[in-house]
Amino acid sequence: VKLRCPKCGWESPSKTTFQCPACAAVLEAVVEIGRLSKPQLTEIRQRTEQTVWRWFEFFPVEERSAIVSLGEGYTPLLQPSSLAARLGISRLYVKNDTVLPTGSLKDRSNTVGISKAKELGYKTAAVVSTGNAAASVAGYAAAAGLKSIVMVPEGTSPSKIVQAGAYGATVVVVKGDFEEAARLYKAALKEFGWYDCLSTNPYRNEGKKSYAYELFDQLSGRVPDWIIHPTAGGTGIYAMWKGYNELLTLGWVDRLPRLIAAQSEAAAPIVAAVHRGLSDIEPVVARDTVAESIQVGYPKSMGGRALEAIRASHGTAVALADDEILEAQSLLARLGGIFAEPAGAVSVAAAKKLQEQGIIAPGDLVVCTITGHGLKQPDAVKISDEELRPVPANLGALRKRLELKGK
Amino acid sequence: VKLRCPKCGWESPSKTTFQCPACAAVLEAVVEIGRLSKPQLTEIRQRTEQTVWRWFEFFPVEERSAIVSLGEGYTPLLQPSSLAARLGISRLYVKNDTVLPTGSLKDRSNTVGISKAKELGYKTAAVVSTGNAAASVAGYAAAAGLKSIVMVPEGTSPSKIVQAGAYGATVVVVKGDFEEAARLYKAALKEFGWYDCLSTNPYRNEGKKSYAYELFDQLSGRVPDWIIHPTAGGTGIYAMWKGYNELLTLGWVDRLPRLIAAQSEAAAPIVAAVHRGLSDIEPVVARDTVAESIQVGYPKSMGGRALEAIRASHGTAVALADDEILEAQSLLARLGGIFAEPAGAVSVAAAKKLQEQGIIAPGDLVVCTITGHGLKQPDAVKISDEELRPVPANLGALRKRLELKGK
Repeated sequence: VKLRCPKCGWESPSKTTFQCPACAAVLEAVVEIGRLSKPQLTEIRQRTEQTVWRWFEFFPVEERSAIVSLGEGYTPLLQPSSLAARLGISRLYVKNDTVLPTGSLKDRSNTVGISKAKELGYKTAAVVSTGNAAASVAGYAAAAGLKSIVMVPEGTSPSKIVQAGAYGATVVVVKGDFEEAARLYKAALKEFGWYDCLSTNPYRNEGKKSYAYELFDQLSGRVPDWIIHPTAGGTGIYAMWKGYNELLTLGWVDRLPRLIAAQSEAAAPIVAAVHRGLSDIEPVVARDTVAESIQVGYPKSMGGRALEAIRASHGTAVALADDEILEAQSLLARLGGIFAEPAGAVSVAAAKKLQEQGIIAPGDLVVCTITGHGLKQPDAVKISDEELRPVPANLGALRKRLELKGK
Repeated sequence: VKLRCPKCGWESPSKTTFQCPACAAVLEAVVEIGRLSKPQLTEIRQRTEQTVWRWFEFFPVEERSAIVSLGEGYTPLLQPSSLAARLGISRLYVKNDTVLPTGSLKDRSNTVGISKAKELGYKTAAVVSTGNAAASVAGYAAAAGLKSIVMVPEGTSPSKIVQAGAYGATVVVVKGDFEEAARLYKAALKEFGWYDCLSTNPYRNEGKKSYAYELFDQLSGRVPDWIIHPTAGGTGIYAMWKGYNELLTLGWVDRLPRLIAAQSEAAAPIVAAVHRGLSDIEPVVARDTVAESIQVGYPKSMGGRALEAIRASHGTAVALADDEILEAQSLLARLGGIFAEPAGAVSVAAAKKLQEQGIIAPGDLVVCTITGHGLKQPDAVKISDEELRPVPANLGALRKRLELKGK
């Protein structure tokens, strides 16, 4: 496994240098898959492992003994028929990543990233985050026997800190906003030599390639017409594209999916770049949104590469308003039985919108990734006062209450 | 599939009568597995399905088209080595049911129960509960296109209602305590003809047999020496025992596991019955406990059958104090990377205690089921005020903060 600059081609002589000294670009992990052939595909598909590690050869980890796994991956790929009918997309699939071990898609990144940390001999893993990444890094670090440091900005609600704290992370609340916390984080990485679990780490960025392999397996080799992914930093889109291109290079698939980045209107720099034909991402000021987990104004590390992937795939990007996102969250739960956080359901909102706009055709094979558990952000669900009002314990009162609901 | 009284042998002529008119016992589903043979085992094990439905023939659902699945089952069976070392049990496995679709083991029951509801033509599924069962019934009903009614006692915290509400359940808060809500529920079942999703339903009780089949698969045919299960109503223990006995009858295994019911000291009627040699469960008044999901004082429907299973398996039962339960929750998260609600980690507390008492030997193969997600009850995790105090955004302040934590 080498680390190479995607801009200038420089190859790092070190396994722990993550950035190009000339271009400042995040390096890319180069995994040798050239040796793999058709018979090896058969061998891989016969493995009983139902985790991302079934595809071990595709990840930048040298020794199987370094693997830190909590059983992540091979999440359900469901066909919710009522939801499909409502959206007018007959071949609609949802990939339910809410059931990953710590409750979000970040586990795909961190099983690879933390395994590599173990292989490289690090003792402490770190991240700056206000949500899912913090919990995931803490969970995998715990499983690996590493310490973890989670930095969050002041004002982060204690409920978001709970999960990382439960796994034993050292949580550091930093005075100031997210930008200030991030600046201190970068300085601390250098100062203390922690292992970086942000998307500035080329190894962890490989983890989401697992989407491509799993969809390939779960769709029996068929390639979706569209994959829609809730997008903040852009690593998911970038990695799916890399994964599918590996399968194409090997001759295991004969076409590629079109990729769609779904963002909140309140933080949609990738959508802006796609629609304005920009060559790179321009930062925006992220406003508040119900889609908290994807509230990122400047996806500096990987946004540009996500943009390239979207263009190369003939895909697109779409921004959703909060009410569209909450409606999608509700449809997914009420018609599909999947309880996602609002950010996790943005892909469903995007599918609805793009079908209505005629960009997605009714017969297209569409996969929406669902990226975070509803219990991560329970406040997003509103229960009416009427619903919470106690009724007397008799059948007459119960009947009245049910009739009220029926209206 | 027939329904038969386990006490008097009466066979119900109806598929929707759940109780014996003479004995008042909950009937038992009799699934015809006699026809299955060794070659069929090979066939089952070659199925690619990674859900409980891989074992379709073992469940009381006649037609595959009735199946309502959210991809439940085949949850990770992990070997957390640091936790194993701490507990002094070298062959320790944990079965992580926190990653089931609605976040608890209830999904094993409800995928079977709600599939049967669909097959039988019901329109509305109901349950009385304050926690995991409500969310699970609501989630599966949503996926099935059924209405759901969830009744909860007054005083139930709104956060517990959120998940069921998100799936579209009609939540009815009943004035009074749980017993009063349960009385109204029973009356309402009769009055409105809802489908009953409590353990008074023989079909849903079959769902947890899936533990036996999955462990058989995941342990490559080996049978654990001990299975430890957080226990409230007793269906889990009962169903595991039934599942393993089916495998024994078919000759697919040659021995049976010893079963251990783990309860909270605050609600331990099964422990009392085991240790006092009672022939049936005597009700206790359940006190408050951190293990909210297993706070049941009188497991009337299935407790007696769990007791029989424990005795027949040469197993035992153990009661844990709240501090032991919280310690186990913390060990599981910090050493194993699994975040469970306190009730979900009671099995780990029991493993520790029984190893210390010499009942579990250091080399025994032990499986602890982990039955509910930590995000179901985030308040159980305490974060110190010190940890929440913001630090100035500079390296000097950060260093001080980290040193403080280091002490």
